[in-house]
Amino acid sequence: MKGWEKNIRRVVPYVPGDQPAGERLIKLNTNENPYPPAPGVKRALKEMDYDRLRKYPDPASLALTDCLAAYYGVEKDQVFVGVGSDDVLAMAFLTFFNSEKPILFPDISYSFYKVWAELFEIPYEMVALDEGFHILPKDYYRENGGVIFPNPNAPTGLLLGLEQVEDILQHNQDVIVIVDEAYIDFGGRSALSLLDRYENLLVVQTFSKARSMAGMRIGFAVGSPRLIRAINDVKYSYNSYTMNMPSLILGVEAVRDEAYFKETVGKIVKTRERAKERLGQLGFTFPDSMANFIFAKHEKAAAVRLFEALKERQIYVRYFAGPRLENYLRITIGTDEEMEELYRFLEGYLEEDGWKAQKNI
Amino acid sequence: MKGWEKNIRRVVPYVPGDQPAGERLIKLNTNENPYPPAPGVKRALKEMDYDRLRKYPDPASLALTDCLAAYYGVEKDQVFVGVGSDDVLAMAFLTFFNSEKPILFPDISYSFYKVWAELFEIPYEMVALDEGFHILPKDYYRENGGVIFPNPNAPTGLLLGLEQVEDILQHNQDVIVIVDEAYIDFGGRSALSLLDRYENLLVVQTFSKARSMAGMRIGFAVGSPRLIRAINDVKYSYNSYTMNMPSLILGVEAVRDEAYFKETVGKIVKTRERAKERLGQLGFTFPDSMANFIFAKHEKAAAVRLFEALKERQIYVRYFAGPRLENYLRITIGTDEEMEELYRFLEGYLEEDGWKAQKNI
Repeated sequence: MKGWEKNIRRVVPYVPGDQPAGERLIKLNTNENPYPPAPGVKRALKEMDYDRLRKYPDPASLALTDCLAAYYGVEKDQVFVGVGSDDVLAMAFLTFFNSEKPILFPDISYSFYKVWAELFEIPYEMVALDEGFHILPKDYYRENGGVIFPNPNAPTGLLLGLEQVEDILQHNQDVIVIVDEAYIDFGGRSALSLLDRYENLLVVQTFSKARSMAGMRIGFAVGSPRLIRAINDVKYSYNSYTMNMPSLILGVEAVRDEAYFKETVGKIVKTRERAKERLGQLGFTFPDSMANFIFAKHEKAAAVRLFEALKERQIYVRYFAGPRLENYLRITIGTDEEMEELYRFLEGYLEEDGWKAQKNI
Repeated sequence: MKGWEKNIRRVVPYVPGDQPAGERLIKLNTNENPYPPAPGVKRALKEMDYDRLRKYPDPASLALTDCLAAYYGVEKDQVFVGVGSDDVLAMAFLTFFNSEKPILFPDISYSFYKVWAELFEIPYEMVALDEGFHILPKDYYRENGGVIFPNPNAPTGLLLGLEQVEDILQHNQDVIVIVDEAYIDFGGRSALSLLDRYENLLVVQTFSKARSMAGMRIGFAVGSPRLIRAINDVKYSYNSYTMNMPSLILGVEAVRDEAYFKETVGKIVKTRERAKERLGQLGFTFPDSMANFIFAKHEKAAAVRLFEALKERQIYVRYFAGPRLENYLRITIGTDEEMEELYRFLEGYLEEDGWKAQKNI
């Protein structure tokens, strides 16, 4: 090892889902929205003045934060935006988790939490889900340096009711509690309504799922002015200008069109409920997802083989190795047509004798 | 103080230059390029497929890193991209400055270095420039945990020759040395040519200045495969997808058009040299800038008053308070027309008796 190599930080990074190229494939592996962004986004993209690109964007991203504040009915100083909710969450870890006590998050959850904790050397404890994959609020009653959980949880799709979220908050008033609501729009009630009562609550959402903007990298946090000021201070200590001009302009357009947003989300929810029926008929079991994906296990077929067979057929789903997960596939809800192709393939695959033999290898 | 407030990180953030709105103002305060991005950027913006925004961008940003590797004649695994060079530098601090010994950087320099060191709790020492604002390589011969300096330096504009940069490298082979070349294209020789011999060298550049893309937030680092792998690991531990789809597509277009790039840079250099003449005639003195700005002091007029008078006239330049800086203004090189307006205003201002009286208040 060379002298300078000892100064390099050692980390085990998060591994994102594949981004395979090609037009004909069916991509159900990264929880993207199968529908395009709002039509206003298309229009704004065409009308964008490229000459303005030579200037720095607004470092405070006010066009976008003001628009989100109006949409969600909070004050302007209660919103923070970042380069996807990953950027917002990373900044939040750095800003809010500075206790010597361990932060708490579920053991089966968004796997980035552990990565951020290790990157920033934050002590943490992972709290086991119950056998049905549920988060139990009482497991979060103990002393800690902060709490974070997704609602609905990923990759299970299970939703906590607002009462349960508040139960966790009531028992954690001395630390900062982050509710990661990447998937809340697909059937959950947001913790935003609890902000008035809990100054230590930060709600994080994203444009990547319900708003069809994964390619733009926009996420946001809503919280008390005190929390938002603190995370802004850290952001200005890291990168003054995180949001580029297109993301500010197109982000505003995505928020403006509420009718399109509701229509798109409605279609995905309908397809998801239909998927629950069809997958059930095919012999799959799954937690009752309130997100835009289903975390499914087959009574007979091994998940990893099914994953490989689907991939060969150009249908990409997500497989996570590891205890309690290795029999499951996380299947993003696509269009009705994409899902029909999935069911057709599964029918054929499960009828063949092949998978039975393979299962016993 | 509430219980949870003690877990909040305390920082003193960097304060970016004003981004005043309005069409008629002359903006010479944040070192933006006065010319638009390459024509290919305009075309690509119009042709961009908005439907693709629903999908995640390539987390490895290969289109852009490959294109930069080809342009600069390095291997594909030697390039890293981020959300402006601030993002790249912040990641680099986090990745490479993990020694218990202090890192070194000039005392008059990009003021973000100190902010990052404090954010990540990296010990640091600021090395004084000489009385002519020069970086002296011999001041960097002592033991340290890493070295970073801009070349040309900001806000002075002074350039180190390649031999001097190599001198610093030769005396710092056990730590990582970062050369921040945000302004290198305006007259300097890049340290890229030293990469073959120094595996511990990281060269950082940006699209915000010479490439007219401040609004897109694109920066990059070039270094040995070992350094690039390390910073990528940290990036994947922070945010998998930092570069949004438009920045990848438009970034490639900005690199492709070498003729336009050279033409634009040539115009700015010519305007800068003319500015040195005119400012000299007006009674200003300044280090001999090789960047797209001039750091100028007037023999009689107080900088802070001149700054305010210019602002009133809708001409924005940058003023830094603080020892050795408080008599200077940093003036970005604009178009010839913008600079003529500046000279006209200065002529009038300096002829008036007003500033003389004010100076003595």
